[in-house]
Amino acid sequence: MGKDKKDFVIGIDLGGTKIYAAVIDRKGKILGSERKKTKAELGFHTTVARMAVCAQAAATAAGIPWEAIRGIGVGSPGPLDLKQGMIIETPNLAWREAPLRKELKKLLKKPVYVDNDCNVGLLGEYTYGAAQGARDVVGFFIGTGIGGGIIIGGKLLHGFNENAGELGHVILDPQGPACGCGNKGCLEAFASRTAIERTIRAAIDAGTPSAVLEGAETGPIRSRRLLEAYMANDAAVVPAINRSAEYLGYATAGMLNIFNPEVVVIGGGVVEALGDLYVDRARETAVKNCFKIASRNVRITPAALKDDSGVLGAAVLAWSHLR
Amino acid sequence: MGKDKKDFVIGIDLGGTKIYAAVIDRKGKILGSERKKTKAELGFHTTVARMAVCAQAAATAAGIPWEAIRGIGVGSPGPLDLKQGMIIETPNLAWREAPLRKELKKLLKKPVYVDNDCNVGLLGEYTYGAAQGARDVVGFFIGTGIGGGIIIGGKLLHGFNENAGELGHVILDPQGPACGCGNKGCLEAFASRTAIERTIRAAIDAGTPSAVLEGAETGPIRSRRLLEAYMANDAAVVPAINRSAEYLGYATAGMLNIFNPEVVVIGGGVVEALGDLYVDRARETAVKNCFKIASRNVRITPAALKDDSGVLGAAVLAWSHLR
Repeated sequence: MGKDKKDFVIGIDLGGTKIYAAVIDRKGKILGSERKKTKAELGFHTTVARMAVCAQAAATAAGIPWEAIRGIGVGSPGPLDLKQGMIIETPNLAWREAPLRKELKKLLKKPVYVDNDCNVGLLGEYTYGAAQGARDVVGFFIGTGIGGGIIIGGKLLHGFNENAGELGHVILDPQGPACGCGNKGCLEAFASRTAIERTIRAAIDAGTPSAVLEGAETGPIRSRRLLEAYMANDAAVVPAINRSAEYLGYATAGMLNIFNPEVVVIGGGVVEALGDLYVDRARETAVKNCFKIASRNVRITPAALKDDSGVLGAAVLAWSHLR
Repeated sequence: MGKDKKDFVIGIDLGGTKIYAAVIDRKGKILGSERKKTKAELGFHTTVARMAVCAQAAATAAGIPWEAIRGIGVGSPGPLDLKQGMIIETPNLAWREAPLRKELKKLLKKPVYVDNDCNVGLLGEYTYGAAQGARDVVGFFIGTGIGGGIIIGGKLLHGFNENAGELGHVILDPQGPACGCGNKGCLEAFASRTAIERTIRAAIDAGTPSAVLEGAETGPIRSRRLLEAYMANDAAVVPAINRSAEYLGYATAGMLNIFNPEVVVIGGGVVEALGDLYVDRARETAVKNCFKIASRNVRITPAALKDDSGVLGAAVLAWSHLR
């Protein structure tokens, strides 16, 4: 069976701040990887060139000749035109109508497959992580914003305009806080890291004693610092985190009543830092707020692959087209 | 082609107050029908016997010999055990673990197929009504409560515990009004006919001038009366109906961001009475509160089959098993 030895793909996770590329075999084993800064501010072509260099460096790190690479899978911020493999627009990267697949294919001379970063992350968790063996899966990814993904019958749901799975923008209170999307009371406006920070800063401004900003009065509060403050029972941080988890729980309750999935995966930076502390509270709120039958034997679980869900899912995407 | 002439099924719509049975051919033509009261209070076996009599009377009305009936499809209130064709429990009918398929099959000596009433109604709209030709469809049915259905890739979504599509119980405000399901701020608690009535009665109790209750101080307010009062610009009725349509719009915005369906069908008694007056307002709120790309070229439309969606969908269910 020389085939397993000779066949590889490269999975690329394109983020707002970094590019992560990994050489992956048919079984989901990572043989080598490389990270680079995205530098989106230098323009689309610079970033694509950096992606190409990152992919080649990953192959070198893995000791795999370039000829053994069958194709490239990419998880990208969206919304995307999937058929063209094109970024329509994305606030994180400030590009519009960026022909990602075409340009990357030109540089790397391999087939390139692109999907939404959260879809790809969920595909990774579905194939190798927390949702293995399930048929219907919902995924939430809690970071600066909140993204999502949906798998029905083992397949990613893309929808009519290929824009399904925007789970950060289910409305949890039409009179709620303003959301970055322009509407009010979306899940993201209650539960993202940005929302958590806003709640913490508002509490501190209102006089709540807190040590979380010490030495970091400006700039984002890092996840590890959030965890430390939460564990230290910080009076500004604990309610802000709990509120995030509870609103995620309300949204999850909705997903259970809507999809009745077998597994709900909760991932992203906030969850990687806080883990079960966060997911347990979200789960408790979810189960309390949906039909009993909709949560029966349903797993609501932290993502398992951490940072690797994106590259692994991107590899699954590539393999699904290549076989 | 004698086959089209000889082959029929019976679709049965089992409701809280009435049973509606119709003989239907392979093309969705209704050849004869019959209605009876459900009389659920007399017990499960009485109602099943009434369903059987109703089915046979429909065949007689259609002039179709019983031998030409291939099978029976039933839309029933749920939650259901689909594999058993059993009603697990249902507030409307006050039965528990009622073996609907088994008992009806015993009486009628034909194959019987059972699914949730809203799923079956949506299947009717998908096959013969407002959602023809679409692949991904979401349906809301606004009545005493609010039910829903989801079609993905041309197939009803049932989910892990066969309980998907409970769209009346997405949470639109965790601090909102109490819902019949035991939680707070579900769509149903804002937008069902029951919620509309509650809002109207509260406004009248608070002194808002209104003619809607005249001659009907107790008991439910009929849909036609709601329409008349709405058209007459009744000060208690207009805001109550508008609020219902707007909250349905928020829930629809969520569905657009989640599923990005091609069609959203809005049916049920309230919509049959108010039609575009109601759906236009829901659509406007929905489109304003979701991503632009999620509503692009998406139809948000009243159901087209009115009372017949259930029997037609039940026929589609039966045919799908019989072919």
